[in-house]
Order: sequence, then structure tokens, then C-alpha cells
Amino acid sequence: MSLIVVGTMAFDAIETPFGKSDKIIGGSATYVAYAASNFIKPVQQVSIVGYDFPEAEMNELKERGVEVEGVEIVPDKPSFFWAGKYHMDMNTRDTLVTDLNVLADFNPVIPESYQGAEFLMLGNLMPKLQKAVIEQLRERPKLIVLDTMNFWMETALDDLKEVLTMTDVLLVNDGEARELSHEFSLVKAAKKILTMGPKYLIIKKGEHGALLFHGDEVFFAPALPLEDVFDPTGAGDTFAGGFIGHLAKTRDISYENMKTAIIVGSAMASFCVEKFGTQRIKEITKSDIDRRLQQFQELVSFDIELV
Amino acid sequence: MSLIVVGTMAFDAIETPFGKSDKIIGGSATYVAYAASNFIKPVQQVSIVGYDFPEAEMNELKERGVEVEGVEIVPDKPSFFWAGKYHMDMNTRDTLVTDLNVLADFNPVIPESYQGAEFLMLGNLMPKLQKAVIEQLRERPKLIVLDTMNFWMETALDDLKEVLTMTDVLLVNDGEARELSHEFSLVKAAKKILTMGPKYLIIKKGEHGALLFHGDEVFFAPALPLEDVFDPTGAGDTFAGGFIGHLAKTRDISYENMKTAIIVGSAMASFCVEKFGTQRIKEITKSDIDRRLQQFQELVSFDIELV
Repeated sequence: MSLIVVGTMAFDAIETPFGKSDKIIGGSATYVAYAASNFIKPVQQVSIVGYDFPEAEMNELKERGVEVEGVEIVPDKPSFFWAGKYHMDMNTRDTLVTDLNVLADFNPVIPESYQGAEFLMLGNLMPKLQKAVIEQLRERPKLIVLDTMNFWMETALDDLKEVLTMTDVLLVNDGEARELSHEFSLVKAAKKILTMGPKYLIIKKGEHGALLFHGDEVFFAPALPLEDVFDPTGAGDTFAGGFIGHLAKTRDISYENMKTAIIVGSAMASFCVEKFGTQRIKEITKSDIDRRLQQFQELVSFDIELV
Repeated sequence: MSLIVVGTMAFDAIETPFGKSDKIIGGSATYVAYAASNFIKPVQQVSIVGYDFPEAEMNELKERGVEVEGVEIVPDKPSFFWAGKYHMDMNTRDTLVTDLNVLADFNPVIPESYQGAEFLMLGNLMPKLQKAVIEQLRERPKLIVLDTMNFWMETALDDLKEVLTMTDVLLVNDGEARELSHEFSLVKAAKKILTMGPKYLIIKKGEHGALLFHGDEVFFAPALPLEDVFDPTGAGDTFAGGFIGHLAKTRDISYENMKTAIIVGSAMASFCVEKFGTQRIKEITKSDIDRRLQQFQELVSFDIELV
């Protein structure tokens, strides 16, 4: 039982109403790996970095059971860099800098040693590259989860539609679900998207929780109400890492277990936003996670026998 | 076990992206009464209407166990009238007309026959009037629930603060909680508001559900994801009616039972938005309500034993 994670490993510089970070470690695959490694080993990473990506960070990932054979290191270019500034509501942000750097040449190659992985997490990337990854796998994984974003809906819709037919679970936010389906109602949007390939659709609503759609069924996972949201960067990827990490750990891809997996993802995301970057998700322990899962249980448990 | 409901009975004219209503029956106390009467009889109504309020509507309320001795009928003025237009997101609206009419003279008088009621629902009104109602009750009700709005925070804050010290449960929406507390984080807002009098605070977030705060505890009730939200008018009052109706029926005002009551309120509100005005909440039966409560249970139930 192993999990392949494809996505970016990068630098971020983040400004929020509560503070400003230096250039810190970020990237979708980084967050997914840190989150998922709490549940499953190995996590088989596929990414690209430049000469400036710290060896110490690679070593920390390796210590957590993340294999980095699939991470290409480009010796003469810097790593992908993003800088952004969040507004007061922490739901909206302005991008200040996007330096693609090595990412412009990313052409993911699956190492021979990764073949046979049962789970595949495709982070938000150009749909053509996501498809190329799937096509390199000689045995289809038990579960393929795909993340994407509005940018690809606007610039590579046909490619995105093609890769959607090859995936099991699609992860998008509410705005993206509306854009992809041309439906305002999320229930209607979900019905349409579930005809486009994925059998499961997760719509992330940030501080308002997440919805899981499958056939005619729907499940809702709340976000934990927090005193402070310090930095939302990476929360979506951390959610994805907790989600697929739990599924890979339990090797159970039933709808029932996906509900649990979404709660696990929500719990991991609730840690992520408590500090800048990956700081908080590096600190937490198994007992922190268990305690938080208990909080989610208490948050939504009620008794309708009385009614 | 009886419930006094104080608030408006009025006419509304509603425009949404999906249609336009004629002048139809509305008002906070109307919605509360229709919702609560599914759970408890009598509902003892306190309101004011003009010569134009239909006798048929009064009779329909009476048939449902709503006592109208406390509803003043002013023979020479029209009823309160509100007209509004919702935007595409159905969360924001423009007020087109507010004709106070009889409401300008509203001075609620509690009939002798209402004395001894165990539950009191104070709909959104001038805080001085809400206080005057409490002071007329010789025996303090077991539970006083208060609704209010941003308008009173801006024009009658001292009066509002005074009546808050006399209540048990405050119902506001997220924007109002922020305005009252001067805190952006809802968790911080709740902590502050819980020092102002109420022991329980419900923050309504419309399509994003509702939060119940009590001491250091928090409970979250989702909104049911619906294909279409046809008309949100009255959803908050219908929620309040289901909430206090369930508490009055069970005569149990524990925190645990309040969780259930919030789910009942959310279920009632989910019916309300399916048609214009009070139409849908007049149609539903006990088995419709039970079925919907079951849907809420399924919407949030998950198993963390596996983790």
C-alpha cells in the first residue's frame, strides 16, 4: 500500500492581517506529503525543485517516510516561487508574485520503484501533465484523486475534461464547481460534474466546511470554528493529504470511509491554518490528531431520538 | 407548557431571480408561529395588524393552536409592509419598501391568559419593547430567546445591552455577531457576547449553517444542501420557531437538547426556502419533518472508530 503524490514543491512569501512570513517552504505536494505521512508510508513524491530547495527539508520529508526519487532537482534554476497577500476575511487573496522558474519545465516522470502504487494524488497542475502521469502507470491505481483550479477551466478545458474521465475523486472549491458546471446551486453543479467522470466530488468551502457528493448522496464536513486563522495557505492541500492518507491507511475506498476521510482532512487543515506555512503540520503528533478528530465528532453530534 | 411569541405579522412582496410574489403574508411572528405549532400548542401570539390582515389567515393560525388574543387589530391603519429583492446569491437583498404603518404604534400587551408561559420568543423588535414584554410577565419564563438585528446595534445599543442581560439565548447572524462584539473571529465574538447576558448564543450563517455557543462548547448545525433556494424570506424566523418549538415540546432546556433543537430549526428553515413566503411551511406534515431530520442525521454522521 503506497501513495504517489504529484505536485509542486516551492517557496512562498505570505502576508496576512496578522503578520508576514519570510520566503518559506510551500507547494501543493509538500503540504500533501506532510499531511499524508501521518497515516501512510511510503509517500512517493513526484515534483521538481531548483538548486535553492533546502536539503534539510528533503531530509525531513525522508525521515517521515516520503520517498523523493521522483523529485527532479534542476541545478541551474531556482524553485517555483509564489507571494500573496490575504485580505481581512482570509478567504480572498491577491497574488503578488508568481515566478514559475523550474515549474515551466516540469515533465513528471514516475520512477520504476513507484509502479504498483495503489493510491494517486494529482495536485493542481496543467491537466496534460496530470494525464501523462496516469498514462505512465502500468497498473491503474485503486483510487485517483484530482485537484485542479479555475485557471485550467479557462485555459485548458478540453484537457481537463479528458483527465476527469480518468479519475475517481475530484477536489474543487465552490467557485470552481460553479465555473466547471455553469450551475450556481452546488447540488446541481455536483450532479453535472458527476456525469463528467469522477464518481465522487468534494467541494471545499474553506471556513464553511466541505461537501462530498456521490450518486444521490451528500455528506457535509464542517470546518472547526477557530479563534484565529493565522495563514490559510496550504489548507486545501493539507485537507487532500489527510483525506487520501486516511483512505490509503485503511485501504477502504467505500463511500462510508470517504466520509471519515473528509473529517480527517478537515482536522489536518484545521491545524495547518494555525501557523505560517507548514510549521504547524510539522509539529503535530498522533494524539493531537486524535484529540481534534474527537472535537469534530462533538461539533456535529446530536440526538434526534427525542424528536 | 406554553410559548409566547412576540413579533410582526405583516405583508411582504418578494422578488428573487426565480420569480416575484404578490403581496403575501409575512412577519417574524407569523413564521415563528407556523413553525412552532408543529411541536407545541398553544402558541400565544403577541403582535399588531391593520384592517387589511386577512381573517382567513387568523383562522388558519387558530386551527393550528395559535392563540391570537394578544394580536391587536388596528381598524384604521394598514398592516406593516416590506418589499425586497434578492440578489443571485440569495444571501443579500435590497429593501425596496418599508411601510411601518401599524408597527409605528406597537406597544405589546400580554393578555392575562398568557401569564405563566414557560417559553418566550422575542422576535426582532425595538429592544425597549422586548424589555417591556419581559417586565409584564409576573413569573419569569423558563427560557427567553431573543432575536435582534444590526439596526438596533446602531440606533439603540444601550437598550439592547439591557435586554440582553435579561435573556437566555441570543439569535443573530454572523455579521451581527461581529458588529455587536467588534470581533471578526466568530469564536472570539461568541466569547464576548456570552459575557453580555445570554448563556447561549446561536450564530446563523444562512446556507452555511448555524453555530451554538455555550461556555467553552460549540456545536455546528449544517444547512441542508438544496437544489434550489426559492425564497429565503422568513428562514431565520422559521428556524427560531422550530428551535423553541422543540424545546417547549420536550420541556428540556439542556445544552444537549439545544443541539437537537437547532437541527429541528434548520430542518424547518430548509422547508421554508423551498417556496415563496409561508406556503411551504403550511403544507408540511409530521412525516415530512421526520424524514428531513433523518436527512440531517445522514448529512453529518461519520465513523471515527477506524482512525
